[in-house]
Amino acid sequence: MSGKLIGVGTGPGDPELLTLKAVRVLNEADVVAHFAKRREDHLRGSRSNARRAAAVHLRPGVTELPLLYPVTTEIDRAHPDYTAAITGFYDQSADDIAAHLDEGRTVAVLSEGDPFLYGSYMHLHVRLAHRYSTEVVAGISAMSGCWSAAGLPFVQGDDVLTVLPGTLPEAELTRRLADTQAAVIMKVGRNMPAVRRALARTGTLEKALYVERGTMSNGMTMPLSEKADDDAPYFSLILVPGWERRR
Amino acid sequence: MSGKLIGVGTGPGDPELLTLKAVRVLNEADVVAHFAKRREDHLRGSRSNARRAAAVHLRPGVTELPLLYPVTTEIDRAHPDYTAAITGFYDQSADDIAAHLDEGRTVAVLSEGDPFLYGSYMHLHVRLAHRYSTEVVAGISAMSGCWSAAGLPFVQGDDVLTVLPGTLPEAELTRRLADTQAAVIMKVGRNMPAVRRALARTGTLEKALYVERGTMSNGMTMPLSEKADDDAPYFSLILVPGWERRR
Ligand SMILES: C[S@@+](CC[C@H](N)C(=O)[O-])C[C@H]1O[C@@H](n2cnc3c(N)ncnc32)[C@H](O)[C@@H]1O
Ligand SMILES: C[S@@+](CC[C@H](N)C(=O)[O-])C[C@H]1O[C@@H](n2cnc3c(N)ncnc32)[C@H](O)[C@@H]1O
Repeated sequence: MSGKLIGVGTGPGDPELLTLKAVRVLNEADVVAHFAKRREDHLRGSRSNARRAAAVHLRPGVTELPLLYPVTTEIDRAHPDYTAAITGFYDQSADDIAAHLDEGRTVAVLSEGDPFLYGSYMHLHVRLAHRYSTEVVAGISAMSGCWSAAGLPFVQGDDVLTVLPGTLPEAELTRRLADTQAAVIMKVGRNMPAVRRALARTGTLEKALYVERGTMSNGMTMPLSEKADDDAPYFSLILVPGWERRR
Repeated sequence: MSGKLIGVGTGPGDPELLTLKAVRVLNEADVVAHFAKRREDHLRGSRSNARRAAAVHLRPGVTELPLLYPVTTEIDRAHPDYTAAITGFYDQSADDIAAHLDEGRTVAVLSEGDPFLYGSYMHLHVRLAHRYSTEVVAGISAMSGCWSAAGLPFVQGDDVLTVLPGTLPEAELTRRLADTQAAVIMKVGRNMPAVRRALARTGTLEKALYVERGTMSNGMTMPLSEKADDDAPYFSLILVPGWERRR
């Protein structure tokens, strides 16, 4: 009998934000896989954040399967070389996991935040879910972790919430920010200058909050208008709260 | 010294989806408050869902503070009587909690899903946060719980996610559904007919999933197109997944 594939949300960083279910599943897993960059980037915050959040919950001696991204610096995602490299990487990772599943082992794949919300685990899920039994354990999303830690009530009543990747064209960011009560901008990083302009143009810069490594011990939250530069690490997002009429 | 107010996300229903932090906080609290309808509606699913999810984690003998909504049937939210009743209720609830805080007690308020995502706790938070020390423990949102349980990859890459209250006018639902890769429609209930028409008009009905009491033992998930009637309980939502190019 084949093993089971489990995508496990590990939350935004604070190890206490794992669910009871995630902890149980990690304890029962034969193999625990996680995505990581080939070389850790200590200055800008490493991307094996999920591994760090889950670390205290791993069974000693459990088999670990690091899935190492082929690219360490972010090259243009539109380039065919990038697409080929990343597709090959997901194919290979899925094969590596399938080999364990074929031996009847349960494989848990760590996923930052919530797995189905822009998570890398999704690329494995779509490659394996038609062949193996799967389960997905919801995780605390980065946005929930960040607005909670900031004490920032976010949406209420008839508010619309728009979640925007910072990778969108500036004109589209602007258009969408102008037409929503609340917004979260993910994947800020190198897109910060365009994101900041879009916020300024829509009059939302003043209420925007910038969160870097939210809920982590080295995390930081500040009004975006007080942030001097446009330097942002991978683990950062921007919160534009709704609910103007606060009663 | 005053006590601390803590908004605790209890997740979508499955007691295993509480975070370790929520469990710890519930164990340390002197008083645990929860919102409930004055009379439980057994047929349609009660609204003290948060209390049920948290039940196994409450310390025996802990002081409980049920906050009972003044209205048992949903009357028109636009009516001044409704506004007065509900505002008075939140004021009174905040006062009741403040009395405990003044005695130095820690008060945990249970909140379905994530507290700052359309949660009733927000009404207490804005009334008390300027006077008392507060903390908010993020919870698994209903949408995360539902798309995870359904095994439905939701957003990836440049996808925009729009979260819509089903209480919005039909024309606005239609406009917004036509202009997003993925959408979640909350607060379906009696708004189902309008929501269904908006989905049909935007060609998204076929891929829409209907989830009732997601992650609960009596929960149910089905393609909305296969749901025969427009009868939906309070605890239901609709998922329109993004990520068409699944690779
Ligand atoms: C590939 S997406 C994964 C999102 C994750 N699955 C979730 O549920 O939030 C990565 C983006 O999430 C955001 N992010 C993740 N963890 C974060 C944290 N602790 N603080 C701030 N932003 C974070 C950043 O915007 C980052 O670029
Ligand atoms: C007042 S809002 C609270 C949302 C919650 N704070 C969250 O984080 O998801 C109530 C709405 O959440 C949705 N909801 C909450 N729990 C649910 C569940 N278990 N299954 C389906 N929908 C749910 C329904 O749409 C319901 O009308």
